[in-house]
Amino acid sequence: MQKLLEKFKETRNYSVELCKPLEIEDYIPQPVDFASPPKWHLSHSTWFFEEMILKKYFKDYKIFNPHFSFLFNSYYHAIGERAIRTERGTNTRPTVEEVYEYRKHVDSHIEKLLENNKNSELEELIILGINHEQQHQELLITDLKHTFSYNPTHPVYKIGFNLTAQENETAGWLKIPEGIYEIGFEGEGFHFDNEKGRHKVYLHDFEISKHLVTNGEFLEFMKDGGYENFKYWLDEAWNWVCENEIKSPLYWQEIEGKWFSYTLEGLKPIEPNHILTHISFYEAQAFAAWKGLRLPTEFEWEVAANQLNWGKRWEWTYSAYLPYPKFKIAEGAVGEYNGKFMINQMVLRGSSTATPKGHERKTYRNFFHPKYRWQITGIRLAK
Amino acid sequence: MQKLLEKFKETRNYSVELCKPLEIEDYIPQPVDFASPPKWHLSHSTWFFEEMILKKYFKDYKIFNPHFSFLFNSYYHAIGERAIRTERGTNTRPTVEEVYEYRKHVDSHIEKLLENNKNSELEELIILGINHEQQHQELLITDLKHTFSYNPTHPVYKIGFNLTAQENETAGWLKIPEGIYEIGFEGEGFHFDNEKGRHKVYLHDFEISKHLVTNGEFLEFMKDGGYENFKYWLDEAWNWVCENEIKSPLYWQEIEGKWFSYTLEGLKPIEPNHILTHISFYEAQAFAAWKGLRLPTEFEWEVAANQLNWGKRWEWTYSAYLPYPKFKIAEGAVGEYNGKFMINQMVLRGSSTATPKGHERKTYRNFFHPKYRWQITGIRLAK
Amino acid sequence: MQKLLEKFKETRNYSVELCKPLEIEDYIPQPVDFASPPKWHLSHSTWFFEEMILKKYFKDYKIFNPHFSFLFNSYYHAIGERAIRTERGTNTRPTVEEVYEYRKHVDSHIEKLLENNKNSELEELIILGINHEQQHQELLITDLKHTFSYNPTHPVYKIGFNLTAQENETAGWLKIPEGIYEIGFEGEGFHFDNEKGRHKVYLHDFEISKHLVTNGEFLEFMKDGGYENFKYWLDEAWNWVCENEIKSPLYWQEIEGKWFSYTLEGLKPIEPNHILTHISFYEAQAFAAWKGLRLPTEFEWEVAANQLNWGKRWEWTYSAYLPYPKFKIAEGAVGEYNGKFMINQMVLRGSSTATPKGHERKTYRNFFHPKYRWQITGIRLAK
Amino acid sequence: MQKLLEKFKETRNYSVELCKPLEIEDYIPQPVDFASPPKWHLSHSTWFFEEMILKKYFKDYKIFNPHFSFLFNSYYHAIGERAIRTERGTNTRPTVEEVYEYRKHVDSHIEKLLENNKNSELEELIILGINHEQQHQELLITDLKHTFSYNPTHPVYKIGFNLTAQENETAGWLKIPEGIYEIGFEGEGFHFDNEKGRHKVYLHDFEISKHLVTNGEFLEFMKDGGYENFKYWLDEAWNWVCENEIKSPLYWQEIEGKWFSYTLEGLKPIEPNHILTHISFYEAQAFAAWKGLRLPTEFEWEVAANQLNWGKRWEWTYSAYLPYPKFKIAEGAVGEYNGKFMINQMVLRGSSTATPKGHERKTYRNFFHPKYRWQITGIRLAK
Repeated sequence: MQKLLEKFKETRNYSVELCKPLEIEDYIPQPVDFASPPKWHLSHSTWFFEEMILKKYFKDYKIFNPHFSFLFNSYYHAIGERAIRTERGTNTRPTVEEVYEYRKHVDSHIEKLLENNKNSELEELIILGINHEQQHQELLITDLKHTFSYNPTHPVYKIGFNLTAQENETAGWLKIPEGIYEIGFEGEGFHFDNEKGRHKVYLHDFEISKHLVTNGEFLEFMKDGGYENFKYWLDEAWNWVCENEIKSPLYWQEIEGKWFSYTLEGLKPIEPNHILTHISFYEAQAFAAWKGLRLPTEFEWEVAANQLNWGKRWEWTYSAYLPYPKFKIAEGAVGEYNGKFMINQMVLRGSSTATPKGHERKTYRNFFHPKYRWQITGIRLAK
Repeated sequence: MQKLLEKFKETRNYSVELCKPLEIEDYIPQPVDFASPPKWHLSHSTWFFEEMILKKYFKDYKIFNPHFSFLFNSYYHAIGERAIRTERGTNTRPTVEEVYEYRKHVDSHIEKLLENNKNSELEELIILGINHEQQHQELLITDLKHTFSYNPTHPVYKIGFNLTAQENETAGWLKIPEGIYEIGFEGEGFHFDNEKGRHKVYLHDFEISKHLVTNGEFLEFMKDGGYENFKYWLDEAWNWVCENEIKSPLYWQEIEGKWFSYTLEGLKPIEPNHILTHISFYEAQAFAAWKGLRLPTEFEWEVAANQLNWGKRWEWTYSAYLPYPKFKIAEGAVGEYNGKFMINQMVLRGSSTATPKGHERKTYRNFFHPKYRWQITGIRLAK
Repeated sequence: MQKLLEKFKETRNYSVELCKPLEIEDYIPQPVDFASPPKWHLSHSTWFFEEMILKKYFKDYKIFNPHFSFLFNSYYHAIGERAIRTERGTNTRPTVEEVYEYRKHVDSHIEKLLENNKNSELEELIILGINHEQQHQELLITDLKHTFSYNPTHPVYKIGFNLTAQENETAGWLKIPEGIYEIGFEGEGFHFDNEKGRHKVYLHDFEISKHLVTNGEFLEFMKDGGYENFKYWLDEAWNWVCENEIKSPLYWQEIEGKWFSYTLEGLKPIEPNHILTHISFYEAQAFAAWKGLRLPTEFEWEVAANQLNWGKRWEWTYSAYLPYPKFKIAEGAVGEYNGKFMINQMVLRGSSTATPKGHERKTYRNFFHPKYRWQITGIRLAK
Repeated sequence: MQKLLEKFKETRNYSVELCKPLEIEDYIPQPVDFASPPKWHLSHSTWFFEEMILKKYFKDYKIFNPHFSFLFNSYYHAIGERAIRTERGTNTRPTVEEVYEYRKHVDSHIEKLLENNKNSELEELIILGINHEQQHQELLITDLKHTFSYNPTHPVYKIGFNLTAQENETAGWLKIPEGIYEIGFEGEGFHFDNEKGRHKVYLHDFEISKHLVTNGEFLEFMKDGGYENFKYWLDEAWNWVCENEIKSPLYWQEIEGKWFSYTLEGLKPIEPNHILTHISFYEAQAFAAWKGLRLPTEFEWEVAANQLNWGKRWEWTYSAYLPYPKFKIAEGAVGEYNGKFMINQMVLRGSSTATPKGHERKTYRNFFHPKYRWQITGIRLAK
């Protein structure tokens, strides 16, 4: 229990740490539907502890502010009415200072609870809350990058904090033989419901790349007219390219014939040996088609994971996000965590440079709509 | 070759047959993007033979009308510019009569070609053209039903031609044991590229229903507030229900407390023992969740198919439309037939009462976006 | 009364006359919201006589088809539910033949009524119905042109019937002195409610052009970068130009450096000395600004009308469509004819080559949203 | 000159004064296109002085920050590229503190300029800048109210600062006789270009109300089903009501059968004797129609103004915003101030409780699209 308490404090503190370089102004805007303001992430992760734990387990708990339940619910219908998702950036009150007070209030109550309690159900919910907060730490930083990217002055978040400047450490192809493999989480430790239900799949022979696609490789695709030739693209992807006039990965801009990219350290030149990022599934698939190769499935990825060097990019797979054979949706609000998104999303495996340490897992199933690019995504090829 | 010629004539004739009950006016409108007018189906299936076969194999072939290549291309980028998909209903010329002349012109040339030719590549393309036309025969009739459904006068297509009035002939559950199974087309005969690449999958024990869900069963879901309770629905599905105010299957309307449905024989009362149809994947999945059951995967369906009574409805599976392990896209325009749609669509298996006889196959992979309802779709449950 | 009967027959017959060159297919499509299919115009103008006259004045009148009241109402809320305006092109039934039967049925009843009746209220309503039908004759032909313009085969409506090939017969400027002038309809004869209420306005000295702007003059504006320079355009107009990538008048296309225009005789080269047409108010105003001149107000136009040569184009004025000082909305459905459109529309004066003979009047107030271009519009300058 | 300097300082100071009750967070959001964040108003009004005056008249002026020219230009095409209007709420940097430094920088330079300069052109531009800033002071407070209105916690801007709690001081009707009247600005003193060009209009007899419509009168319209009966509404207005499900003035909400309104002092009950506000032209016109009366034209208003008690509400007129007979657009960027908006907007006369003192003028022509409601608008009837 002591260990859990420490993990709790450490996680809660890391969210605060991430916000240290921010000005008050930076906590507010939400330029797009799919991203949220820092203030919202700080509040919502706190709300989760209050709503799912304190209300139930802390005797005579006094809600910090009854409005917050409405303001900081994300998508849990079971809990009641929510603020409209696209209006998160309109609420200036509570102030940032009040949000930090809210955090302290909830933290102190959770800490008291943990000191006096030996309840495995409670423990599990706190671990879920910690993992939930870690997910929002990753979103906080990628959402912030997105908001900053709209600013023509290219704001610097923090010198030395650049999520996208890594090189590959390995190369070549890994061969995996045909056969029956086991997929899904196994053993002790935290995991989400969507990884559950260890089960067998049959895989045919395949090879998977030991390195992730680099900026240099992708620039070749661009030079070869990759963005202008329909034949590499899925039909829906081609419409996306044409309607949005996509000509490069997200955050890239060409200035006098040279490519630059907005980073959390400001605008930087594209380094060819750095690992490519901020691409959609559409682009990942088109690049693979141009190469005459393909993306791995999430099963191939998981089977190969122990022999791969992963953790720098969320790697797009050519697997749709669907339930595992034994998947069951949990009762109540917690059941809305994952299952209801199992349609029209693609699975990403691995983790990224924005993922909090210790949050990654080889059976982890991340998922996004194929068009999204604001996460630290990347490409690993298979054949 | 003689047999192929007969099959060709028979198929071409069946399209004309389907249009016999139509008035000239009925050939024109396209009320929605996803459906096309009869005139377009008749022309496009003809264009396919002219474009893919006659231009290449018929010596000194004279194109019937150079405009038609532009007007009746559907989605083949490789062939050049196309008329905008949503404007198919705006073109009144060529007239219906000219379209029938076009058909005769192409038919006579294909027939001549077949009489004089022993080319297996040509033969394969003609078989592809026949199957292509059969697909458009199914669409022609379902698209027409959709157009007619907008008309408050409930037009009758033909008495005795009602696609949706069938009952189940079997009931109960079929058990399939765990193990390795082979999936995909095998042997001789026509099949699409997306069924190719026979391969192994591992299936866990499952049971699949021997009957399809009926109107009566679905009415219970409706009475139990199925359309009003978010908890049965995927998140995207719930948005679809709310935004479109969906309250029943497509074409249903409540008149003085009784449910009716538009059919090709006009407005008819809903029969509880008839098999349900015109539902989206969203509704199929929500119904299954309400029952505490699930939809089968396309692999489970294919393995069970020999022991099932199928063919009345396109059955939604909980499998995304993705490439089989050995899938390769063909070179040239024919390569655009299937592969480029492998994203954000769900697989339907079986066939429907609108499918031309002989076109169905147990390895057939039909696919639509989960929201579509105008095809003769249905639900088979699994557990 | 005999004269009215003849006028009635003549008008009704002219609608049929206008449709003689059409194929059945041409009666159906509605490619855009603001235009309607020929079938709808034929039916709606007939419905007006049935709904507003026969139901009330013809004893024991038997409605031809109760569905038609719903299908062919345009915008009269007072009469009840209407078919959705944008779905006029989806209804294939009633067939064109049935519509012609409907016309005959209504015609014969109106004729009987007129033979036996001496009711000035009835007479007035029939005159209103005749004028209403004349308005729809003009729309029928301009809407048809619009539908045909989508067709890459450039259908020919009728050789010798070209609405847009006229030259100016006069030139120079007409000076009008400052003073009080009377505006609005005066005397006997038919007129719409929006022209009523003869009243005084004070006009300052102005000059108005005796000729309409030609294609040649407009080509100079184009060559001078008129469509690319924001400074000639109203703000809303500039957004319209940019969003729709407007680069020329409607129906114009550049082929190998030469300008052509779709006409009802097919594609024709632009003649510099022909009078310009198919331009929006936005373009008219921008052209005037480029010239350092302006458009006349509707009051200036009306005061000058007797000394001008008008009738070839609907001439955009820089007057918003607002009620005259003494304007009163009539009771009942007829009151919805004009008054409710008095917002965000600009007044056009004169008449066009598509206006049926005898329908024009110098006090006539036509009105459209400033973006519309499918009518036979033109520019007369003032200073 | 001394007086101008004082007026300049006073105006600049009032903007800062208005922002005193704000938290940093409140300076940021832009929930809708038509409103802007306080930070933007403070910066843009400053940019106007820098761009239009300092760059030209202050020798060797050093631009405070070259990015600001891009960020804080509103709609002046002549000055170059602008930040996208709808993205004003996304820019968190410059910070609020930096914006205040920017203001001080520009203020001190303008002050120096004014102390050393006797240039009437410069003086005129500074007066324009002052009036421009006053317009933005009014928008700042109404935009802020709009942003706050999204917040379910009903933020209080400042106790004692309630823009909407006024009663009428006069009642009855004022009669104005038929005749020629002069319209437009006359004499010395500041005025906008759109008021210029004193000219004659002819007015017929009319009566204009001495009081503005109250909440109580409007509640009667609501109780009588005003929002549900198409016959009072212009066609475009009725579409607006239906699409947006409009049921009351802006900011009103019904709680347990009682009407409340969000104000800058928080949520307050509707007082029947207070003057109605936050209504669109559509609602103003519908209310007048329901009463069997009408709105005055802007000419009637101006002629009656000296005998009316005005200044609490911007009063909708039934006049479109069009150029006066002698209107000329000025050369250069200043010419974009007014003229380019002269289409599809309605004129409002008077001024409101949010208008800075001394900014109002009886010839002032304010204008908005008929749908907007977030300004302090009101209704004065005529007959």
